[in-house]
Order: sequence, then structure tokens, then C-alpha cells
Amino acid sequence: MDGFSTTPAPPYYAVIFTSTLGENDAGYDAMGAAMVERAQQQPGFLGIETTRGADGLGLTVSYWTDEASILAWKQQSQHMLAQKNGIETWYSHYELRVAKVERAYSGPSGRSVG
Amino acid sequence: MDGFSTTPAPPYYAVIFTSTLGENDAGYDAMGAAMVERAQQQPGFLGIETTRGADGLGLTVSYWTDEASILAWKQQSQHMLAQKNGIETWYSHYELRVAKVERAYSGPSGRSVG
Repeated sequence: MDGFSTTPAPPYYAVIFTSTLGENDAGYDAMGAAMVERAQQQPGFLGIETTRGADGLGLTVSYWTDEASILAWKQQSQHMLAQKNGIETWYSHYELRVAKVERAYSGPSGRSVG
Repeated sequence: MDGFSTTPAPPYYAVIFTSTLGENDAGYDAMGAAMVERAQQQPGFLGIETTRGADGLGLTVSYWTDEASILAWKQQSQHMLAQKNGIETWYSHYELRVAKVERAYSGPSGRSVG
């Protein structure tokens, strides 16, 4: 596990989640791990890539086969977060973008798909 | 500058760049800064969000008005990298995905666009 997602040839979907945490992040790491584990069991889940830099900015991109899978995961994740009072507590700000991946390349070897 | 990009209502485009660095990263930080500066001068550039975690995985998402802007930037950036022998030298692996942002939300205040 080197942090990269192995995704099929496009098209597929990406959910780009950019966030900063608030001062009270108690329970955040455990919740994040639980959410990733649950996401991996969802139909249509392709992979997830996540980083948080020393400045506190976090980027998480999850990949999905289609929009229906994203909507089903949205309901699951909101339910999980509501049980934990999470999203209002943990994040000082977030931006969430749903995007359709149209082309993909990898390297530096030059292999490309789609 | 809190690291978030302020983007318009969708649709617009995202370039998702996931990478790990090789052992020789001399000059990488300076090049990254120069490339961001150049990107900001490109027509159609909307913003950039970038993080690299303690495990070495980096995620950079740049936002663009349209595909033509991305193609123009691709030529610019490849030219800059070629001058520095960069992409083969610095990255041990990368994945690059071009995606059309269809919906966007922000929070936790609940404001949403598109």
C-alpha cells in the first residue's frame, strides 16, 4: 500500500475533499479510519488517496464507478458522521467537489490509460 | 492564504496529481514554487490546492475553466520540466487525472454552489 489508487480506464468519478481541522479533533483519526474501512465495502468504490500537510491542509480524493455509488456513500457517511456529531465538530472548513474523470496518465514510465 | 481555492459554480475542470518523490529531490521545492507561480499567470487558471503528508504521498489539485486551458498549461509545464530534467528525476511515481467538476459544496456552514 503506497497510497496510490489503482483505477480503471476512465470514465469514473472522483470526490475531492479539501479540509482544515478545528481545534477539537478528539476522535477524528479513529473516525477517519472507520470511514475509509466502510467506504471500501461500498459498491462502486475504486480507491482513496489522502494526505494532510504540516500546515494542516488535508486533501482526500476517493474514486467511484458512478454517481449512484457516490450518493449511496454520501448517505452512509452522513449517517456515520451524524452519530458522532462529527462534521460540525472536526472541520473548521471543507470544500467537496464531485468530478467526472475523463483522462488519466501515470508515470514517469509513461504508461497511460484512457 | 489558507490553502483553499475559491472556485466558481461548476462546471469547471480539476487536474488531480498524486505523487511520490524519489531519493533525489534536489531542486524540487524551488521548481514546484516556480511552476505554481507560472500556473497562476496562465489563462483559465482558477486555483491550486496542494499537500504532502509525512508518509511522502503528495496530492495537488489544480482547477481550470476548461480543457483548452489545461492543454496550454500542459505544454508550458512540460517545457519547464524538460528544461530541468524534472519529471524523470524527481518523481518515483505519479498519477495524473483530468476531471470535470460537476457539483461542489462547502462547509460546515452548509453553503453550496452548483
